Amino acid sequence: MTVLFADIRAAVARLEGNANRTPVFTSRTADELTGASLFFKAESFQRGGAFKFRGAFNALSQLDPAQARQGVLTWSSGNHAQAIALAGRLLGIPRTIVMPQDAPAVKLAATRSYGAEVITYDKHTTTREELGETIARRRGLAIVPPYDHPHIIAGQGTAALELIEEIEGLDAVLTPCGGGGLLAGTAVATRHLLPDAGVYGAEPALADDACRSFRSGRIETVHNPATIADGARTPSLGKLNFDLIRRHVTDIVPVSEQSIIKAMLFLWERMKLVIEPTGALALGALMDGTLKLPGRRVGVILSGGNADFAALKPYL
Amino acid sequence: MTVLFADIRAAVARLEGNANRTPVFTSRTADELTGASLFFKAESFQRGGAFKFRGAFNALSQLDPAQARQGVLTWSSGNHAQAIALAGRLLGIPRTIVMPQDAPAVKLAATRSYGAEVITYDKHTTTREELGETIARRRGLAIVPPYDHPHIIAGQGTAALELIEEIEGLDAVLTPCGGGGLLAGTAVATRHLLPDAGVYGAEPALADDACRSFRSGRIETVHNPATIADGARTPSLGKLNFDLIRRHVTDIVPVSEQSIIKAMLFLWERMKLVIEPTGALALGALMDGTLKLPGRRVGVILSGGNADFAALKPYL
Repeated sequence: MTVLFADIRAAVARLEGNANRTPVFTSRTADELTGASLFFKAESFQRGGAFKFRGAFNALSQLDPAQARQGVLTWSSGNHAQAIALAGRLLGIPRTIVMPQDAPAVKLAATRSYGAEVITYDKHTTTREELGETIARRRGLAIVPPYDHPHIIAGQGTAALELIEEIEGLDAVLTPCGGGGLLAGTAVATRHLLPDAGVYGAEPALADDACRSFRSGRIETVHNPATIADGARTPSLGKLNFDLIRRHVTDIVPVSEQSIIKAMLFLWERMKLVIEPTGALALGALMDGTLKLPGRRVGVILSGGNADFAALKPYL
Repeated sequence: MTVLFADIRAAVARLEGNANRTPVFTSRTADELTGASLFFKAESFQRGGAFKFRGAFNALSQLDPAQARQGVLTWSSGNHAQAIALAGRLLGIPRTIVMPQDAPAVKLAATRSYGAEVITYDKHTTTREELGETIARRRGLAIVPPYDHPHIIAGQGTAALELIEEIEGLDAVLTPCGGGGLLAGTAVATRHLLPDAGVYGAEPALADDACRSFRSGRIETVHNPATIADGARTPSLGKLNFDLIRRHVTDIVPVSEQSIIKAMLFLWERMKLVIEPTGALALGALMDGTLKLPGRRVGVILSGGNADFAALKPYL
């Protein structure tokens, strides 16, 4: 089981008219600060406020009709939950979402507002996978995981494909890295379209399982990392994701909390883009010099804009 | 002395390649909340972070060569100062900006960072007009006021022109209103291109001089209004601005502080756009029902994105 460029091209066709083609921004100041020419693909303007809609819609639209009638189940405390809730509504598929009972009220409400059934659980007494699998079996629901799935990865790869086709001659493409759905999809798209370009992932230093996995050659884990980048708090890379990342990615770099916040505020204040902490990871690596790409034309995927302003107040 | 549509068309040609053509955004949720079809022109993505660059560049590029060598002077505590500083740098024109000594440090720094000379004054012992005129006379500088000037108004009108040419069949165009530069320019552009469309201004209820002027038929004033919308704290409409507004505008409506903040947070949280309080005025009027345009196609100019996050923390 793998993901080929043809799968990403097919995903583009499925997303046509359903997902937004997100705009690309530039900033003279960002270029001066990093020494590179940066092209920011703002997935904050994707439906649901993050790239996750791409994978969710691509996966749900490939269910067989009987399964689509029966419904799907997923677990996520964040953007994947909302993406499945929204994509399923558009496709008329019943959705059950397992979320921690202490998830931010705004995220529970947003997921419910798209018409999904939300089932909450207590993190201390059960795991979401265990609960999710039990419910899915009992109700006959198909599980659509947040990243370790070929249809999810192919969908996420469409963002890089759009960026590469819009901006000529990119030398590198950068994305944040959590479970590796966006990075794996980006890697497959970039390798095919630009065989010589670099593909980089940026990960919180406090949740550096992907950095370590990339170096050790086996899947490493973290446990409830305390990073502000909530989209990258995943315990480990997915299996399929890791396989694709090992084959196609140039490097994965760790980014400090301070650099994440500094890059996020730059995006807000100077570029006028609401981007969540996870979405600022790649720019953080460029701004603090962890990743140096002087003189290069660099595509940067800003993964989402679902910032929790109340939680981010201390940094303003 | 007036402003004709031909002046706006000429301004478009001058701005070509210098100003950004700003993107237009839509939101299903905003349409549901207001009952209208809204098209948001995001001047936050204009150079300098606000529409002000349009008027500033249009005015400075029409100076005669001798005056351009000698330089210009303006007074502003906000976006006009930065716009003149930036436009003058691009055109190689020396700039002197008179700003209150208690202006936000970030705005003083931004204006200086564009290479302008900033002269500060004490609000309690002098007025900026008095000080500005003295310095301009002594140094032989041309004064470029923030709104009461035909070249400024014509430049600001280019935003509405772009919006109307991009989005077919608008029934109304809305802008915030401070000194009336953006509203007057928008009114001239809209009346010419869409003779039957409504043109509306939205003003803070705490600084309702333009609303009162529109009704009384003479220029009314306010004194240091305590509105959060700092771009609309101007003491009164400009003379030329008022003349054009009386002839071409459909109505000016007052917006409560609460509605300004609610609309601004909607733009941040749901549309992922960093917009400053003044930029949220028109949406505020639509969201709270002060202005009802059911079923209409409405252009909304989001005037700028220079939000002072530290000052806005209490509302998050």
